[in-house]
Amino acid sequence: MCGTDTTNGASSANGTNGGASFKPSSPYQPVGDFLSNVNKFKIIESTLREGEQFANAYFDTETKIKIAKALDEFGVDYIELTSPAASEQSRKDCEAICKLGLKAKILTHVRCDMRDAKLAVETGVDGLDVVIGTSSFLREHSHGKDMAYIEKTAIEVIEYIKSKGLEVRFSSEDSFRSDLVDLLSLYRAVDKVGVNRVGIADTVGCATPRQVYDLVRTLRGVVSCDIETHFHDDTGCSIANAYCALEAGATHIDTSVLGIGERNGITPLGGLLARMVVSAPDYVKSKYKLPLLKEIEDLVAEAVEINTPFNNPITGFCAFTHKAGIHAKAILNNPSTYEILNPADFGLTRYVHFASRLTGWNAVKTRVGQLGLVMTDDQVKEVTAKIKAMADVRPIAIDDADSIIRSFHLTLHERPAEATSSAPQ
Amino acid sequence: MCGTDTTNGASSANGTNGGASFKPSSPYQPVGDFLSNVNKFKIIESTLREGEQFANAYFDTETKIKIAKALDEFGVDYIELTSPAASEQSRKDCEAICKLGLKAKILTHVRCDMRDAKLAVETGVDGLDVVIGTSSFLREHSHGKDMAYIEKTAIEVIEYIKSKGLEVRFSSEDSFRSDLVDLLSLYRAVDKVGVNRVGIADTVGCATPRQVYDLVRTLRGVVSCDIETHFHDDTGCSIANAYCALEAGATHIDTSVLGIGERNGITPLGGLLARMVVSAPDYVKSKYKLPLLKEIEDLVAEAVEINTPFNNPITGFCAFTHKAGIHAKAILNNPSTYEILNPADFGLTRYVHFASRLTGWNAVKTRVGQLGLVMTDDQVKEVTAKIKAMADVRPIAIDDADSIIRSFHLTLHERPAEATSSAPQ
Repeated sequence: MCGTDTTNGASSANGTNGGASFKPSSPYQPVGDFLSNVNKFKIIESTLREGEQFANAYFDTETKIKIAKALDEFGVDYIELTSPAASEQSRKDCEAICKLGLKAKILTHVRCDMRDAKLAVETGVDGLDVVIGTSSFLREHSHGKDMAYIEKTAIEVIEYIKSKGLEVRFSSEDSFRSDLVDLLSLYRAVDKVGVNRVGIADTVGCATPRQVYDLVRTLRGVVSCDIETHFHDDTGCSIANAYCALEAGATHIDTSVLGIGERNGITPLGGLLARMVVSAPDYVKSKYKLPLLKEIEDLVAEAVEINTPFNNPITGFCAFTHKAGIHAKAILNNPSTYEILNPADFGLTRYVHFASRLTGWNAVKTRVGQLGLVMTDDQVKEVTAKIKAMADVRPIAIDDADSIIRSFHLTLHERPAEATSSAPQ
Repeated sequence: MCGTDTTNGASSANGTNGGASFKPSSPYQPVGDFLSNVNKFKIIESTLREGEQFANAYFDTETKIKIAKALDEFGVDYIELTSPAASEQSRKDCEAICKLGLKAKILTHVRCDMRDAKLAVETGVDGLDVVIGTSSFLREHSHGKDMAYIEKTAIEVIEYIKSKGLEVRFSSEDSFRSDLVDLLSLYRAVDKVGVNRVGIADTVGCATPRQVYDLVRTLRGVVSCDIETHFHDDTGCSIANAYCALEAGATHIDTSVLGIGERNGITPLGGLLARMVVSAPDYVKSKYKLPLLKEIEDLVAEAVEINTPFNNPITGFCAFTHKAGIHAKAILNNPSTYEILNPADFGLTRYVHFASRLTGWNAVKTRVGQLGLVMTDDQVKEVTAKIKAMADVRPIAIDDADSIIRSFHLTLHERPAEATSSAPQ
């Protein structure tokens, strides 16, 4: 199947990756690349941190716990929480979620500051995601600190967190507008003192896929620790950028449910999995409980008072709807013709639209069958012409099309000459 | 600015590309690439073809004309229409739009079939977009034709269209699951007979950015004609794929307003321009009337009865909302710290939260302006009270608040006494 990654020895060697649909003859498989983590990535789910920065978000303790449990059940590797330094309730909620005993590791996201780090360590989290802005924009207009100061503080904070036996990630902010040499020097320094992960963040959503690939690949040659990536969606590339980061050797992707976050948000959990289940089907299907996706999205959408976008990958209302006659015909023969995702993997079903002027007789034939009626192909073609004619005049609903089919079927009673295949007595 | 393309001699040589924000010291500029068309691409707007295949779409003649005129005013290069072979009304609408005398060229999208081509030529269009499925999936389950037959038919149809003096594009369908050698042979053959464009279509939405780059770059070496690309969004990569196609030498991108199309749609017009205005600001701002974007999206959203997604690039309600304290502080110092897009380029402003019981009339006034409505301050205070009353009873979404504002605005028409200042007694 298009995009199926076959580069990682483990799963392609045992023949499970790609399954029956794997076509070794297709030249469009990604070229084998030993850097790729497309079929062994981890998810850092940040709905309870980045998502809390979404315009509409206000999560009370009960809601946070519900979301954390749902994400844990779904199978995410990490759950990231708002800094306990943000507010007293944020600190208490952090403690409460740490006490739930979830399988997922609990992280909190803190500024590169010793006071924040100490407060966070005391909440019982498994690890800290430490962040500081490194771009000249942020150094000038946000915190005003220079690179030497940033490196010194980073090392102190990292060594403190490690001394407490916790995981630590060190991330720059606005990495794609930071000076490359500054950035690599800083990452190399924190790697040497034993940071677990370094983070690349496209804080403003400006990065393009090939820039991401190049930066992560370069970084992969400089540090030995894991590489986490965080992509905003201002220019619509957050899913693609995450994918390219994995191709270049990144290990962890930050997501939020429906992508909620600052401005128009970050890589969405569902959208990322739509991409990844196509590229690494066995890994994704075995690791994540995909049929829970819609429930989690509904939970978060309700909590932040938004509607799931009509065009959301997988769960948008029309994600598995087929309309044009040529598409409908092929889908009815074999869904793989126009579907790269299988709705059943997500506990969903497909819908072949037949009530429009773009319909074809194959789609109508299926509907005739669904209605329990029997017609010859010629009869189906005749009623298809009636449906198209009606749909040419005004929009018609399924009910309307069904009525046309039923009424046409009734007239068949009055045609004694056509007794052979379908005519009832 | 991050991602600004400086590769094309013409615009970078005269110093206009990137403008004041161009930072030659940034190592994250895309490496100069003579293939790139990032700052000279063309848009084939397919809301009236691909968009008509959207589950909810039914465009009557009047709506089609409104949309075509709006897209023309916006500055798209081409407007693509449903095949006149789809239905009698489709044929008539095609003729009607051709007679509007728009600046944009009018195309229609037809199967690779001489009857369809003849019908299309007679409508008065400027060109035909011819399509046939070339993947083994489609050849087996859709039309059942082999490559030799496809090539022979394609050449006949292309030569016929050219003999009528019209533009012609030949596209494969499901290009990323087609055999590379078959595909290149076919494209080379149609290039030789003088096709204007060949088209690459990711019909199922399976392609990844680096696959797109590789395929387009390969094709760029095989044909001398223009290269059009069409990306579905099933795995959330349609904008990024379009960008990478341009980097590799593609010349034309298919879009639809809000991305409407089969399943969850294709590269959205607004999302593509969010990407492109960051990468090629001068080209995009001089060519397209960006402040019309929201109006066109609203027109289409209303016609197909959907809401603009909360996270839509540029026009999603929170695209320019800043919430976290650290972001807000920096934004107040300099918006470039956390904004790669300037809302003013699109005639928009930064967002003020208003859909809660804590809202104030100044926030609602801002929203009224964003919705393009005109009210006096007293009227804004009156509708603010309505919003607060509703939000006190239950959580309300932006959609709800917008509905309250719109419905209140409608009632103003029914108040003859309030013609000027509108102040109720």
